[in-house]
Amino acid sequence: MEHDEGPQREASDGPRTRFTVAALAQRLGAEVDGPGSIVVEGLNALDMAGPTDLSYIGSEAYAARWVESKAPAAAVTAGVHVPGHDPGRRALLRVPNADLALAQLLTIFAPPAEAPPAGAHPTAIIHPTARLDPTASIGARAIVGAGSVIGPRTILEPAVQIGRDVAIGADCVLQAGVVIRDRCILHDRVCIHANAVIGSDGFGYRPDGRGGMRKLPHIGIVEIHSDVEIGACTTIDRGKFGKTIIGEHTKIDNLVQIAHNVRIGRCCVLAAQVGLAGTVEIGDHCQLGAKCGVADHLRIGRGARLSAMAGVPFDVPEGAEVVGAPAIDRRLFWQIQAAVRKLPGILKSVSRLERESDRTNGANSGSS
Amino acid sequence: MEHDEGPQREASDGPRTRFTVAALAQRLGAEVDGPGSIVVEGLNALDMAGPTDLSYIGSEAYAARWVESKAPAAAVTAGVHVPGHDPGRRALLRVPNADLALAQLLTIFAPPAEAPPAGAHPTAIIHPTARLDPTASIGARAIVGAGSVIGPRTILEPAVQIGRDVAIGADCVLQAGVVIRDRCILHDRVCIHANAVIGSDGFGYRPDGRGGMRKLPHIGIVEIHSDVEIGACTTIDRGKFGKTIIGEHTKIDNLVQIAHNVRIGRCCVLAAQVGLAGTVEIGDHCQLGAKCGVADHLRIGRGARLSAMAGVPFDVPEGAEVVGAPAIDRRLFWQIQAAVRKLPGILKSVSRLERESDRTNGANSGSS
Amino acid sequence: MEHDEGPQREASDGPRTRFTVAALAQRLGAEVDGPGSIVVEGLNALDMAGPTDLSYIGSEAYAARWVESKAPAAAVTAGVHVPGHDPGRRALLRVPNADLALAQLLTIFAPPAEAPPAGAHPTAIIHPTARLDPTASIGARAIVGAGSVIGPRTILEPAVQIGRDVAIGADCVLQAGVVIRDRCILHDRVCIHANAVIGSDGFGYRPDGRGGMRKLPHIGIVEIHSDVEIGACTTIDRGKFGKTIIGEHTKIDNLVQIAHNVRIGRCCVLAAQVGLAGTVEIGDHCQLGAKCGVADHLRIGRGARLSAMAGVPFDVPEGAEVVGAPAIDRRLFWQIQAAVRKLPGILKSVSRLERESDRTNGANSGSS
Repeated sequence: MEHDEGPQREASDGPRTRFTVAALAQRLGAEVDGPGSIVVEGLNALDMAGPTDLSYIGSEAYAARWVESKAPAAAVTAGVHVPGHDPGRRALLRVPNADLALAQLLTIFAPPAEAPPAGAHPTAIIHPTARLDPTASIGARAIVGAGSVIGPRTILEPAVQIGRDVAIGADCVLQAGVVIRDRCILHDRVCIHANAVIGSDGFGYRPDGRGGMRKLPHIGIVEIHSDVEIGACTTIDRGKFGKTIIGEHTKIDNLVQIAHNVRIGRCCVLAAQVGLAGTVEIGDHCQLGAKCGVADHLRIGRGARLSAMAGVPFDVPEGAEVVGAPAIDRRLFWQIQAAVRKLPGILKSVSRLERESDRTNGANSGSS
Repeated sequence: MEHDEGPQREASDGPRTRFTVAALAQRLGAEVDGPGSIVVEGLNALDMAGPTDLSYIGSEAYAARWVESKAPAAAVTAGVHVPGHDPGRRALLRVPNADLALAQLLTIFAPPAEAPPAGAHPTAIIHPTARLDPTASIGARAIVGAGSVIGPRTILEPAVQIGRDVAIGADCVLQAGVVIRDRCILHDRVCIHANAVIGSDGFGYRPDGRGGMRKLPHIGIVEIHSDVEIGACTTIDRGKFGKTIIGEHTKIDNLVQIAHNVRIGRCCVLAAQVGLAGTVEIGDHCQLGAKCGVADHLRIGRGARLSAMAGVPFDVPEGAEVVGAPAIDRRLFWQIQAAVRKLPGILKSVSRLERESDRTNGANSGSS
Repeated sequence: MEHDEGPQREASDGPRTRFTVAALAQRLGAEVDGPGSIVVEGLNALDMAGPTDLSYIGSEAYAARWVESKAPAAAVTAGVHVPGHDPGRRALLRVPNADLALAQLLTIFAPPAEAPPAGAHPTAIIHPTARLDPTASIGARAIVGAGSVIGPRTILEPAVQIGRDVAIGADCVLQAGVVIRDRCILHDRVCIHANAVIGSDGFGYRPDGRGGMRKLPHIGIVEIHSDVEIGACTTIDRGKFGKTIIGEHTKIDNLVQIAHNVRIGRCCVLAAQVGLAGTVEIGDHCQLGAKCGVADHLRIGRGARLSAMAGVPFDVPEGAEVVGAPAIDRRLFWQIQAAVRKLPGILKSVSRLERESDRTNGANSGSS
């Protein structure tokens, strides 16, 4: 894929951070195999890197791309062999753990954080009964409803909408267009990405006796514990009564649907486009792959792993790994997949065996 | 899952409604088994309830949790046995139908409705040719385009955006961030949740003859009939020409995609993350489970039920129940699932039969 | 499905374009079979058309609906037989290619384009260091951050939010509520539908050593090349480092999730609710059906076709067509589907063969 850069490319060329390889090696605890004087200004993949980009070799597979990369330097795990490396011209930074080093490099090369000013933008609409910590930052056109509380250093980006009697703790970031509806609770360090909706009504109706359906009031709330991250355009419904709960340190990706009265434990990971039906319970430390779904009222045990696209119609025990729709044990799933591909052949074998059996039986009955 | 409550919890403690068990029993038509003088202030699940929460026992399975619950009182269907109930200390409200009672209790405990004031907020932008009923309420920063009509008592929450020549009936509620594009029609009592998009262009292109693709104009509209509810971040595309139609009393959950020229009948239920491709027709009273998908131009007959995650590549007849992807008859699906799990065993049996057959044939040919 | 029209229906009755059939025939290069003097004012499906709507007969199947349609005229491919056509009363416009004619008709009947005025609406908030082309149009309440550049004739609809150092080219349209985050790049003629989010952080964490997880900084960007269209509520994450790239002429539908560092080639089509995990590469001219998903780091070869709901756990070669989850070759998939439906029967056959085999073996051993 070759693309022209286009005239507007220049706009992303702001001042960049510059480091010598030697300086970076010191911060990473790396041994340098090549010139420490090389200067790098950014971080990029091997095949996308330019002549001032540091790169990153995560495995032997990527090491094979080093020769063709334009990067003058790369971080690599100590034991990995990098074919064709020329230490007279380019530098490898050999680190004990390349994944850890990458995390450090991302922090080193991150653009400087730009904390918006404390206080409310003049165009924000803050209800007189709302209480804002003086260190909180309320962006342009944001709205904070009656009785709501915004904690220290919390940032509401422009056009965030906070309903009535919402409680938001310290050091939260709510990005542009996020909607938090009445009475929901966010603890500390919660990060919610743009256009997500927290506290919408659950999906509950009952027949109205005249052929239609009548909406059930949803009087519960959503409570999001500390250190949770929630992706863009994700929707979390409030409890029918009681709470929908997201546990501490749980991370939720984009476009996820979480229905009324779901309870998710601590340190779970929900990948993009997951859907959880009403009153599902997810134990601590579970991993839910992208697009998987769990039917209503089910319990997923602590530490369970649901594969991408799994469709879960039964409870899942602690620590289980399930795959497929309907989801079954991971090992059984792949056994069945292997067997299924032999099915057309099995069909032929069974037909042949039946013909032989009929012939034998015919012969037997004929001979009797 | 134990979570600390955090300092901000207090914010949701507004004034709550207080009732004696006797008073509630009268409203529900319940018989009280225990002290009618107990006071309750809220409604919660058995395992989440505090000492002032009424709870709800939906079935024998939940009845087993009564002893350990902190709730001082619970509604329960008349015939259900509740082990360990101590009528000297706690109260059961025995009702003819617990589901119906729950609906009543949700209404009783719902926070008071807070109808926003009639008229347009000073920061709303209303085109001079738009016509607002004087009882309609237009929230802060909402925008209403040229020629649009907003009916009696309809509420546009803050930052709702209404395009040109849109027609919205009476008693609708459009929540924060909803976008309704040009010329779409909403009848009465339509409720649309936050950040949903109605009337986006359909997904239609044709080759431009030079290797690229050119967008087809989408000149149709979306028409949403009365008593429809549409979930957060749901998207409904306008017709390529003519209309995309949502029938009366149909309920659509969060993150659903409805493509151009889809026609959905009356009283359908579409769970979260459903996707309908272009020109699909859904008959009245259909139920579509979460994440199911229907390919373009198909017809789903009246009263059909599509299971969660069903992938429908063919028309579905009236009243059918289909499961799986590709979706097939529900009973056949589960028969096949049962058989599939025996596949690894079948493989072994067929191999053994073939070996025996070869031996027999070899013996036969050897003996001949 | 019959619906009452409701009182607000009149609002969509603006002035409509009026044409005689003869005039349309001239523009389409059609032969008229019927009165050229018939006047039509709109375009609609056969079964939805009123007495002033032109309609469209795409195939023999639709031709059968002509007699019952209220449309006074329809475009139809030259060779298609239309049973029951009465040329004394109604007109058929016979065209060489009905699909091409439809594209022309959509353009002819499209409501007049309403380009908003150039310049920034007084309520827009433009950072003093942002550079707007004088022909760009910035809608009400839109926000453009520091250092961002907006190109000629580009339209930001109301409430669009552009971060810092964003570069947007010429003739782009960003609809209501779109969020573009810092440093992202859009080339020319990019169209993004309402409430989509471009440049949200990728989903990347590492253990924090104390039982929780720590967010990785995402320092990369999203680059969207020319002539790309992106659907409503679609989310595209920025690169962890480097870029997430969408190639020229690629079309992306509603509610699609594209993770960090994905690279999509030219002229691809991604239907609604597709999900691509981190670092996926999609070659040029690929077609991804609705709801399909691709696991992280995989490569999809040029021209490959992924069916709706495909779940792709392996690389897909150039030009391949895959179906199912896990996705396999299209032909094999349908062979297996056919075989699977015979599974309950196979089970019975194998049981019978085993009984016979046991009997034979028993007889043999008995007779020995």
